[in-house]
Amino acid sequence: MKSYLDCIPCFFEQALRAGRIATDDEQLQKRVLDELGAMLSRISLDSTPPETGRLIYHMVSEITGNPDPYRELKHKSTQQALALYPSLKRTIEKSGDGLLTAIRIAIGGNVIDFGASAAFDIDTAIEEALEQDFAICDYAAFKSSLAKAKQVLYIGDNAGETVFDRLLIEQMDKPVTYVVREAPVINDATAEDAIQAGIDKVATIVSTGSDAPGAIPSICSPEFRQTLDSAEFVIAKGQGNYEGLSNEIHPIFFLLKAKCRIIADNIGVKKGDIVLQGINI
Amino acid sequence: MKSYLDCIPCFFEQALRAGRIATDDEQLQKRVLDELGAMLSRISLDSTPPETGRLIYHMVSEITGNPDPYRELKHKSTQQALALYPSLKRTIEKSGDGLLTAIRIAIGGNVIDFGASAAFDIDTAIEEALEQDFAICDYAAFKSSLAKAKQVLYIGDNAGETVFDRLLIEQMDKPVTYVVREAPVINDATAEDAIQAGIDKVATIVSTGSDAPGAIPSICSPEFRQTLDSAEFVIAKGQGNYEGLSNEIHPIFFLLKAKCRIIADNIGVKKGDIVLQGINI
Repeated sequence: MKSYLDCIPCFFEQALRAGRIATDDEQLQKRVLDELGAMLSRISLDSTPPETGRLIYHMVSEITGNPDPYRELKHKSTQQALALYPSLKRTIEKSGDGLLTAIRIAIGGNVIDFGASAAFDIDTAIEEALEQDFAICDYAAFKSSLAKAKQVLYIGDNAGETVFDRLLIEQMDKPVTYVVREAPVINDATAEDAIQAGIDKVATIVSTGSDAPGAIPSICSPEFRQTLDSAEFVIAKGQGNYEGLSNEIHPIFFLLKAKCRIIADNIGVKKGDIVLQGINI
Repeated sequence: MKSYLDCIPCFFEQALRAGRIATDDEQLQKRVLDELGAMLSRISLDSTPPETGRLIYHMVSEITGNPDPYRELKHKSTQQALALYPSLKRTIEKSGDGLLTAIRIAIGGNVIDFGASAAFDIDTAIEEALEQDFAICDYAAFKSSLAKAKQVLYIGDNAGETVFDRLLIEQMDKPVTYVVREAPVINDATAEDAIQAGIDKVATIVSTGSDAPGAIPSICSPEFRQTLDSAEFVIAKGQGNYEGLSNEIHPIFFLLKAKCRIIADNIGVKKGDIVLQGINI
């Protein structure tokens, strides 16, 4: 997905949020915004939002001298999600359709996104996702594709959300390769975050080879591109991966909550909607 | 009121809204944002938001070649408000306290603000303002100051809102000087807009001598500063005038709807609240 003019004010909001998390120095926070202003004419609307997000978070780290501003918040999110794990595991086991319930929980966990918002409530988001109607629900296709697949490529999104991904992985009963970001960016999950969530017990962890907050094949490692190209069944979580992969020609199932109006418009749903959408299926 | 870091993403939203109203050319709209980006390091947080607003709208006019993008929207707002005039006049006459009801209506009309938002509903806003509790209500002081004053200085805000100001002016039964912006900026009222609303029938129209979207004494004409300094009783409508005048040492009554969280915080109320606040009284 390309960027829209409406993404630009939002880039400034994201940079300000990140700047404030990275430092308490208001002058440095202002410098972050000034620097983004100076970069703006070089940012093309033809690039995807996560490509620009990557540049912004690099710049925030450089100006504030903080290489991983979200480290502590990521750790807290994971701990908070792990505390919910046992009861959600029971919810899945008691439900009539464990796979669908696990999908709903994995989508609910996608609310843990410090790029999209400064505040959210995981418990409420999970409860909502368990009840909410899907705006798009390609569940039948998901189930039949999964049944045929020998293995699953699962492209993760944020730290903490990883715990809910683990619950879904445990329902799929297939060998899973779980994809994380190569290095810290916003609160996106790295290998370290995935391991904290216990993903290493249920999947093989690999990285995109990039620190963009979304899997954008053109800037990922050749290894990841090859893995993606040869994958039979792909799950991509969250907005950043949607933005990076929505124009791909491979079959991909997107699991996300539309937290931004621009992405919601692009998908054809409303802001706040939950989506299980398969492309090229 | 000084600017806050949170104003910066909002400046970009305002510039984008203005750019889109000024031209359909997406490349020019992008240039507007790029140019604001380039200006950013020269924008000090010590200046008030309307000072920066003035620079932004100048730049939008220059880049798009459209000197008054909001002209048609202002005319429409005034026509829409004039259509409501007769029934609101009756509402005021039938109410127990005509002055307070007219104040409520004048505040409700403050929702006509293309700087703060792209969409609003005048009818709903007026209905709400007639019912809503004031977050701050210095009405007793307002009434007694008004009773003592020989004349009123009324600093207007937006075109269309002017019609609701006229209803309040008609309730005050004092000679009124009504202040408009010197030249078009966003949808702020100029002399032409005030005359379209019939203000010339009930008040003497003067200008701030500036095209900032708020009365900022330091950049207004000496004539206006003198008028302000010698005024016995001052009403200032809307956020832009609050931002420009909140640190003044004269008695001023602010009538506004807090449409922005930053201004609401500064006043000490919540976003959406309605306010009749007297300072230095």
